[in-house]
Amino acid sequence: MGLRKFSGGPTVTQLIADQSEHLVRAAEVLAKVAEANPESRVELNKTLHDIENDADNACHLVLQKINSSFVLPYDREDLFSLSSLIDDCVDLIDESGDNMVLYNVDTLPAEAHKLVAIINDCARITFDALSKVDSIDEHMRAYWVEINQLENHGDTVYRSLISDLFASSDNPMEVLKMKFVLDRLESAIDRFETLAAVVETIAIKES
Amino acid sequence: MGLRKFSGGPTVTQLIADQSEHLVRAAEVLAKVAEANPESRVELNKTLHDIENDADNACHLVLQKINSSFVLPYDREDLFSLSSLIDDCVDLIDESGDNMVLYNVDTLPAEAHKLVAIINDCARITFDALSKVDSIDEHMRAYWVEINQLENHGDTVYRSLISDLFASSDNPMEVLKMKFVLDRLESAIDRFETLAAVVETIAIKES
Amino acid sequence: MGLRKFSGGPTVTQLIADQSEHLVRAAEVLAKVAEANPESRVELNKTLHDIENDADNACHLVLQKINSSFVLPYDREDLFSLSSLIDDCVDLIDESGDNMVLYNVDTLPAEAHKLVAIINDCARITFDALSKVDSIDEHMRAYWVEINQLENHGDTVYRSLISDLFASSDNPMEVLKMKFVLDRLESAIDRFETLAAVVETIAIKES
Repeated sequence: MGLRKFSGGPTVTQLIADQSEHLVRAAEVLAKVAEANPESRVELNKTLHDIENDADNACHLVLQKINSSFVLPYDREDLFSLSSLIDDCVDLIDESGDNMVLYNVDTLPAEAHKLVAIINDCARITFDALSKVDSIDEHMRAYWVEINQLENHGDTVYRSLISDLFASSDNPMEVLKMKFVLDRLESAIDRFETLAAVVETIAIKES
Repeated sequence: MGLRKFSGGPTVTQLIADQSEHLVRAAEVLAKVAEANPESRVELNKTLHDIENDADNACHLVLQKINSSFVLPYDREDLFSLSSLIDDCVDLIDESGDNMVLYNVDTLPAEAHKLVAIINDCARITFDALSKVDSIDEHMRAYWVEINQLENHGDTVYRSLISDLFASSDNPMEVLKMKFVLDRLESAIDRFETLAAVVETIAIKES
Repeated sequence: MGLRKFSGGPTVTQLIADQSEHLVRAAEVLAKVAEANPESRVELNKTLHDIENDADNACHLVLQKINSSFVLPYDREDLFSLSSLIDDCVDLIDESGDNMVLYNVDTLPAEAHKLVAIINDCARITFDALSKVDSIDEHMRAYWVEINQLENHGDTVYRSLISDLFASSDNPMEVLKMKFVLDRLESAIDRFETLAAVVETIAIKES
């Protein structure tokens, strides 16, 4: 783990830390999109797209660094997975906002805001963990344990939302639209768990 | 292939064999969930979740063994895929039962029980194959050929179910709910085929 | 990159070029399926299945070659990804046609034919690029830039179709069926982008 720098410019771990900051930025705007009315949502969504675009470029820098480096702090494929999964999480956050606009959702049910809050928690603790990505080890255990708990909680909230949605409504179109929005929120949370599992894998290899 | 043991405790192939046993247990409970009435389903589903939880722990043991071993009987990434795919199959079986409860399905169409039976066949022959995972070679050909046949049969059954569902019903909510249940059953069968493809890949490398 | 041939028979790059030709054949038949009436669609779909079957065999030959070769022109996992992603693209084209039959779609909206045309463009330029797969480098940049543009365009078309679909219709069953058809078309385009990203990755490593 001593070798972290191979050539000039930022190291791959610095680039990954930078990339992961977009998770927090995207999650924060998503919370605003979720609370906005349909008109203001369109504008906020553009901000979200810009963040997604920046995150895309940040991911590209990481992949280029991985692919052009002979010496890396962790296994190449693990670093590749990390960066791709951060990118997936940002994409899913962006698509969550997108779906609220696309399906012209009016007001979200109260419980749906809990899913958005869970995404914000996931983003923050993932960013915290990845800002120390140059020293992944067992001491990060609290991070993936907390992500697992957030995912479990999210799953319960999601299932209760879906159950209510299909039990109460007699408007299939509205049910469908809301389901597509909720599905995306739930996928985002799931992906944070997959990301945490890669960090755990690296920690096991390092131990 | 001579080196199978690197340190004390069970070998990675023993752990994979153990993990794959959960496929059979989960599939058997799913068959009961599918035949139960909505009330008994809730209780049976808890049993299914417990199996999924045990399977999760078994997967964790395999991944830890893979990540902490220097010498492995097959390529690291193939073993990693094997264990992750067993876990995916158990998850999808669990989610299939879950969806029957979540969408409050009353009675499944007769053909849907065929999908559950195919999942049980897949689980059994996969467990049989993986209980001999320490000697994967061309002699296992019957296993992946049979899985392919089961998947093809499952696909035909699924398509006929979907076609009937969308042709006959005039209750969109019920169509939707049933589709989400059938989709999950079909995904489980698909995943068994992906798993078998990894075993075939290992066999080719070993030949 | 000098070593391209390890044993007799076609090289892995020749086999990948051969495999990718099925993309063009499948996309061309899909365009016919999309324009056909429901009756003629059934027959055309059989042709599409035959192509998908041939593509499956071509993929199998590539994987066998990769797994049985000690020396390969690029990283094993990148070649494996390339071949699997070509296969995914053909599968998604086949499933797109399948869904038109399965959901008994009558006439597609005009914009949906644009998605089919984008798939045809993607197939052609991917085949062009992969027919020179033995010399992947930065000179191929035009290929992945164009795929990205096609994917962006496809995304705009898809979103406008979904938006119209959910805004206008009062028949939920028809909305649902059309959504499942459009989703598959959009997934096919997405997968071409993932495939192009792997080619770009190889180019970066080669540079």
